[in-house]
Parts: sequence; C-alpha cells; structure tokens
Amino acid sequence: MKTVTTLSELRAARAALAGTVGFVPTMGYLHAGHISLVQLAKRDCTSVIVSIFVNPAQFGPNEDLDAYPRDIPRDLQMLQEAGVDLVWLPTPEVMYPPGFQTWIDLDEITQPLEGGMRPGHFRGVATVVAKLFNAVGPDKAYFGQKDAQQVAVVKRMALDLNFPLDIVVGPTQREADGLALSSRNKYLSEAERAAAPVLQRALQAAQVAYAAGERSAAALRALMQQTIEYEPTARIQYVSCAHPLTLQELDTITEGALLSMAVYFGKTRLIDNVILD
Amino acid sequence: MKTVTTLSELRAARAALAGTVGFVPTMGYLHAGHISLVQLAKRDCTSVIVSIFVNPAQFGPNEDLDAYPRDIPRDLQMLQEAGVDLVWLPTPEVMYPPGFQTWIDLDEITQPLEGGMRPGHFRGVATVVAKLFNAVGPDKAYFGQKDAQQVAVVKRMALDLNFPLDIVVGPTQREADGLALSSRNKYLSEAERAAAPVLQRALQAAQVAYAAGERSAAALRALMQQTIEYEPTARIQYVSCAHPLTLQELDTITEGALLSMAVYFGKTRLIDNVILD
Repeated sequence: MKTVTTLSELRAARAALAGTVGFVPTMGYLHAGHISLVQLAKRDCTSVIVSIFVNPAQFGPNEDLDAYPRDIPRDLQMLQEAGVDLVWLPTPEVMYPPGFQTWIDLDEITQPLEGGMRPGHFRGVATVVAKLFNAVGPDKAYFGQKDAQQVAVVKRMALDLNFPLDIVVGPTQREADGLALSSRNKYLSEAERAAAPVLQRALQAAQVAYAAGERSAAALRALMQQTIEYEPTARIQYVSCAHPLTLQELDTITEGALLSMAVYFGKTRLIDNVILD
Repeated sequence: MKTVTTLSELRAARAALAGTVGFVPTMGYLHAGHISLVQLAKRDCTSVIVSIFVNPAQFGPNEDLDAYPRDIPRDLQMLQEAGVDLVWLPTPEVMYPPGFQTWIDLDEITQPLEGGMRPGHFRGVATVVAKLFNAVGPDKAYFGQKDAQQVAVVKRMALDLNFPLDIVVGPTQREADGLALSSRNKYLSEAERAAAPVLQRALQAAQVAYAAGERSAAALRALMQQTIEYEPTARIQYVSCAHPLTLQELDTITEGALLSMAVYFGKTRLIDNVILD
C-alpha cells in the first residue's frame, strides 16, 4: 500500500495503477462502515484508492473541526489490512492553497435537513468531493447511506457536472444494538451511548407502521418523534420524512421516502436514516 | 468529422479517439479566432474536439441570448475544413435538464471588469466549462486571449478544482485595421465598424507609453480613455489596468499588467485587451 501527500504524487501513483479504480473518500478515524465501502470497491474494481482529509470547508465556525478525532497510524493499518492500493493524505495547504476561490453550490437539495442546520456544509462537501474526483479520476466512488443527504448531493452534483464516474452507495453499518457507526460516537458518555440506539428504534417503528399501511408522512414523523422522546437524554433537532431524491418534505408517501433525523445526546449530534421501500 | 448531440453519444465518440485530445469550446458563429485555436489544438494533440453551445447561463436577463448570432451549417463547414475530428452540439436540455441545480462560483476574480458589468456571467461560464471538461475529458483545452477575464477565471477554476488538463491561451486575432475578431462585430453599423479600431489604438498608445517607461496605472488608464474619447460614437463602460492574474486594479505596474476595456458602439458592446510584458 502506497501513501502520498501532494497532487503530483497522487497523479503519478494513480497513473501506475492498472485496470479500473474504486475510490473511497473519508475524513479518517475509520470504522467498519468505511471498511465496508473499501470491500465494495474491491469487489467492483481492480484497484482501490482511499483519501483521508478532514475538510475544513465543511465545518461551520461553531462546529468540531479542531476536536474532530484523528488517528492516521491506526487508519493506515486498517486500510493496509483491507487491501487498499493507494492512500492520499492531502494537507489543508494541498487542498486549499493561497488564492483558492472556487466553490460548488447546489440549490434546493442543500436547503433542508443537514443543510438547514449546517449552513455552508454542503458547499464544502461538494467542493472537496469535486476536487477529489478530479484528482483521483476513479471509475466508481463509494459513499455510505449513513450520510443520506450527502449521498443525494454528491449524486446530483456528479450528474449535473457530467462527472465520468459511478456513485455507489453502501448500507449503513451498525453496532449490535443498532447504533449507526460514526466517528463521532466516541464523544458519547456511557449513558448517552446507552440511549443512542433509540434512533434506530424510531426508524424501525416508522418502518413497521409503513409496512402496515401507514402513508401519512406526518404520522410517521410523529411516531419517530414520540419514540425518541421516550429517551430523556435525547434532544431532537429534526425528524424528517422526505422525498428520497429532492429531499422535500412529503405529505403522502407514494414511492418511497427518506426517513431521517438529527438528535443531540449531550453535546454530541448524531444522525441516522432509512429509505422506505 | 463526426457530430454528436447527447452526452452518451459524445462519450462513445470520445472513447473511440486515439491519442491526446485537444478541446476548443465555442458558442458558434465561428470566425478566424476560433479556427486559430483549432489550429493550435491540431499542432499539440492527436485529435481535436469542438463544442458549439450558446450557453444561456452566461447571459443576463437583459443581454442578447436570443439575438446571439447562429449559423451551424457554416460553422460545421469551417470546422470540417480545419480538420476537426468531433463536434459536440448539445441542446440546452442536454446541458441543463430538469432538476439541474449545481453551480460553480469564483470569488474575487469574478468581481471586477466583465464580472462587475455582467452579474452571474462567470457563474454561467465556470459551470458550463466544468461540464464541458468533464464530458469531453481533454488533455488540453484552448481559449482566446480576447476574453481575458474568462481566461483568468477558467485557469483559476481548473487549478482550484484539480481538473486534469492544460489550459492553452491563443492570441487575439484581428482584422487588418486592428479590430479584434468577435461574433458580435456583425452588429456594428458601417460608421460604428469604422470607429471600433480605436480600441486597439488605445491599447497600443498605452503599450508605447509603457515601453517609454510609464509605470503609473492611472496614467495608462487616462491615456487609453483619452484615445477612445477621440471617437465620438464610442461610449466607455470601463478602462482597466489590472494585475494579470488577480485582476485587481493596479497603482504601479511592476510585473506586467492586463490592459482591458469595454466600450459601446451604439448598442454593441465590444471588449479588447493586451498584456504588457
């Protein structure tokens, strides 16, 4: 496994890879969710490239950029064991050199949900993903369903800007008790960690109601909210039942929906989601 | 010479081209300036692709989108004679299908000069150029120095977003009397056409003063302004002496400068420029 830092090193190492290339962009502090994407990429492609970059542009001024967890040696060990061919570890100076001033903005799709709570977040995501795509030149790029709006934004951007690659979405990986894997889970206290699986229980309650015939989005939202509020430590930021592509809130569910939520446990903000089918 | 319309047709035809690819994006109604870029591309690359697309996104609501001159049969004849391999003629629906919502914005570099007079113009330019680059996948892309700020914006975008290609700039092509070639020259009345070469005379006057040692940007701007005002039909929109990369107005010229101007002759707005060296 080769590791590179600069863009020219990356391009040289990329050009030396034969066959198709799968790409998994990450912010590091890897867990089994990231590794499951690497495994999908290995299944599909001849070679696999992973990037590790904690992207300052997608953190707001009051967010946890400096505190975001980092452990590069452990990450590299995990990627080596997973059979990755090339890891790109750009510095902020490599990504955003002096004079940098080009940004990618999406309209409606970035307004609700995470975009509504985190102004500028998806501008940072879209811009860095476009840079990563152009730098790596993959045939397929892999994203986790856990970040559902990010998936929708990246798919929309790739379509709108004619990026010559496929976006592949891997399923959310979970702990045994149902908590979705996230680098931010490490912030949870013991009590918060014990409460956090309520997110999946809320999604499951809505799925059961949908399977039983419920088609009112308001009813599903209310059901998720009530389930979460059963945990006194949980503080809901939003609970949503939205169109899976446009992310507009639904009245009636006709062809699937994205159920999603952002909930604070203490100072830690967790998200989770499921797509009804 | 092959012509294609849809993205999938383009990708198939592009994949069938051997060797390196040079790309000349145009809005059609071609003149010798465009053909000079094709010739540069043929000199450098194995194959040459040209796009013709009058991009609605770079025209303002009060600009001349509908009136912009079009003559596809003549354009194709000229490109065939110039030895082009592939012409892409996307429709507005191919470029901006329903749901399109991704835009590329550059900060400082789009604020002055053309960007100041034409709000949103460079958002449209940057977005369509990124789409064209991703669709065509060229090794080199060719732009004319005539649109100096467009050149600066495209170079900055390609650098900032890691586009894997070279930007090559061809010199401004001119009529025998010095008028820069432009698709918009056809709008000029006989009297306006006779007056329009004053733009190049103004640039030349500033170049002569610079060669004689003048290093005050204000003095060069004044000299250009006075030269243009000698033509009673000319109405100046701006005259600029700016840094060639950042496009910020200069006080003192230390390492070259971009002299540029936008001037109305009747209802027709012409631009011209030169880089001091």
